[in-house]
Amino acid sequence: MMRTQFYTASSLDGFIATEADSLDWLFPLGDINETSYPQFIQEVGALAMGAATYEWLLNNIVQPKSGPGEAWPYDQPAWVFTSRRLPPVPHADIRFVQGDVRPVHEEMRVAANGRNLWLLGGGDLVGQFYDAHLLDEIIVQIGSVTLGRGKPLLPRRITAPALKLISVQQVGHGFAELRYEVLYPSASPEKR
Amino acid sequence: MMRTQFYTASSLDGFIATEADSLDWLFPLGDINETSYPQFIQEVGALAMGAATYEWLLNNIVQPKSGPGEAWPYDQPAWVFTSRRLPPVPHADIRFVQGDVRPVHEEMRVAANGRNLWLLGGGDLVGQFYDAHLLDEIIVQIGSVTLGRGKPLLPRRITAPALKLISVQQVGHGFAELRYEVLYPSASPEKR
Repeated sequence: MMRTQFYTASSLDGFIATEADSLDWLFPLGDINETSYPQFIQEVGALAMGAATYEWLLNNIVQPKSGPGEAWPYDQPAWVFTSRRLPPVPHADIRFVQGDVRPVHEEMRVAANGRNLWLLGGGDLVGQFYDAHLLDEIIVQIGSVTLGRGKPLLPRRITAPALKLISVQQVGHGFAELRYEVLYPSASPEKR
Repeated sequence: MMRTQFYTASSLDGFIATEADSLDWLFPLGDINETSYPQFIQEVGALAMGAATYEWLLNNIVQPKSGPGEAWPYDQPAWVFTSRRLPPVPHADIRFVQGDVRPVHEEMRVAANGRNLWLLGGGDLVGQFYDAHLLDEIIVQIGSVTLGRGKPLLPRRITAPALKLISVQQVGHGFAELRYEVLYPSASPEKR
């Protein structure tokens, strides 16, 4: 069954990046290959992200100011929500969109052909999928740090119903992986 | 060995209470007796809290506006940090203090006689113990909710060194209990 998943890392105090969109605190905490990521990414058929996440990938992976860049890291088609004009990456399947997440979710679903949809962030974009009752799972690698301030994990109040904790997993001393199912106040049978 | 512990519940997005200091979101998530709390509290010899936490206890447990109150819930001596004059609770061992946490920590240590010291919160008071290198452990019950905004868990940047995740434990669908050891940049042998 296809799932729309918010898979992300966060600080213990609920930030997915510093205010300057830095992830420098994240990488010393552990090896991504020891987490569920290698298994997770194999099951992803399409992905979506906000403009800040896309620009982070450009500035830190693909076109870093210091040193040579790496290839765009995803084989899956990627939708980037942005109200600004952003540079594309050659040879990468990237589609710039804006506005309502629902028609984009439908496009992603068709492209993914039964595989999962990964929402990389930011938090507010994921919140828009939640608002539309389109978010199925939240998988958070909670890093063993606090940041004090930064970009919020998910700027929504989700208490009624609460999330449903499905599993917890320790990954060394640096990460706790928490997996949640997202529930909604009423059934939305038209969802899929 | 005596430990100074921050034992608390938090939302997934890092808030220990709403902006109005409400914990109404917390209680439906699970039964406190199924968590580590009953074992934890037996090993506590003294406790400290900030003014907002004390007032929450007064207004919600001891002297609620609706219905009869319950007894002060702790047998251990309690230190309340406050710059305001607050009403005492009859027959409870409550000591109002302000300022530097270090002499208060020493008083607590003597009173606890080898048992642990519990910092109930709020986050900034715990941050002051962290700043003084007096916080040994953080034990967080992460509730399966997001609040979007509220009172922060621990308004500090703790990344160098990071915290050390010791254990994770699932408590039903409502809580993930994460236990951390707090490390400091340099040894502080005068600590105990």
